[in-house]
Amino acid sequence: MSQDPIARLTVLFARLPGVGEKTAQRLAFHVLKSPPEYASDLAEALLALRQEVRLCSVCCNLTATDPCPICADPQRDAKIICVVESVPDLLAIERTREFRGRYHVLHGALSPLDGIGPDQLKIKELLPRLVEPGGSADGRAEAAGRSIGGVEEVIVATDPTVEGEATALYLTKLVKPLGVRITRIAQGVPMGGDLEYADQVTLARALQGRREI
Amino acid sequence: MSQDPIARLTVLFARLPGVGEKTAQRLAFHVLKSPPEYASDLAEALLALRQEVRLCSVCCNLTATDPCPICADPQRDAKIICVVESVPDLLAIERTREFRGRYHVLHGALSPLDGIGPDQLKIKELLPRLVEPGGSADGRAEAAGRSIGGVEEVIVATDPTVEGEATALYLTKLVKPLGVRITRIAQGVPMGGDLEYADQVTLARALQGRREI
Repeated sequence: MSQDPIARLTVLFARLPGVGEKTAQRLAFHVLKSPPEYASDLAEALLALRQEVRLCSVCCNLTATDPCPICADPQRDAKIICVVESVPDLLAIERTREFRGRYHVLHGALSPLDGIGPDQLKIKELLPRLVEPGGSADGRAEAAGRSIGGVEEVIVATDPTVEGEATALYLTKLVKPLGVRITRIAQGVPMGGDLEYADQVTLARALQGRREI
Repeated sequence: MSQDPIARLTVLFARLPGVGEKTAQRLAFHVLKSPPEYASDLAEALLALRQEVRLCSVCCNLTATDPCPICADPQRDAKIICVVESVPDLLAIERTREFRGRYHVLHGALSPLDGIGPDQLKIKELLPRLVEPGGSADGRAEAAGRSIGGVEEVIVATDPTVEGEATALYLTKLVKPLGVRITRIAQGVPMGGDLEYADQVTLARALQGRREI
């Protein structure tokens, strides 16, 4: 690694996605011109990230506290679980302020070609949450007073891709026999979009999913 | 500041130029997915930046060693000094591999409207370098064996803007009486450009600066 701190920081910044060599240099000089607290705050946040962030033992969200703030919030409806592929997906749903239930993060989607089967996803962590408290394998979580079981609906919010659809189908086969309602988020034309430019598949799904007004 | 390390890092990333909230979040998750060394290397580079980087006492370049590697390199021609506004400008010229002299970084350009006069720039640091060794006020640098004085040419490579031009003019008035040759980098149509799209001022300068072929 280079001796020069500016060059060293530039090389590291350039490894970030979407950051080329020139942008990396601009960022390094920006840090240099910023108040000294900025560099130290950023350094501290980076170290804290690796030290403090772990998976929530209930929903597999990334969190500094276990259970995560959403699982620990008694205001959130424990009877509805929204299943997402990733934490950014979870954050995107949180930003809508439309969903007041809990989550389950799979950390991926089924993709046999990439060697990702059910065992590579956090699916086995989902099932205990759907059975009654007595049937839970996780006695520790139960003792901590967390709501396990009593789930009435599982919303599958995986991506509208081949992998996401396959994952939704797989989950349906697992969850339906447990007597829990399982739903899929609507697929259709995006708001503000133009029908003329919507792709065929999206438009077909929009027609199939039409609702009475 | 937020308690959650991911949110904290996202907020800090979002303060970088050209990085919005969504990009900041993507960067934070990228760091989280990278090998742990990446976050610690980045944190270390950030801290080193503030601790190690200072101004070169000769040319005002940003450097971890004083004098900077360029001033300390005996292979670089001490008889030519290229004056630039900023360190990124210096690095841009270094990338051309066209210049083997030394530099002087002004850290800005004259801009009376922004309250930047000659005293806000590193101009007073330039003048001692142009006079003979005996005339130098900086005895310390001289004792360290650095080349002071004996300068034959000053190339003014400030930006081709109103501020850069004003700075060039100001420097000319200061340097000419010392009997040192002062030159300005050529202004004209950029390589790979199209005359049709060149602006009037650039084209006018290109005509004025025409050379025999």
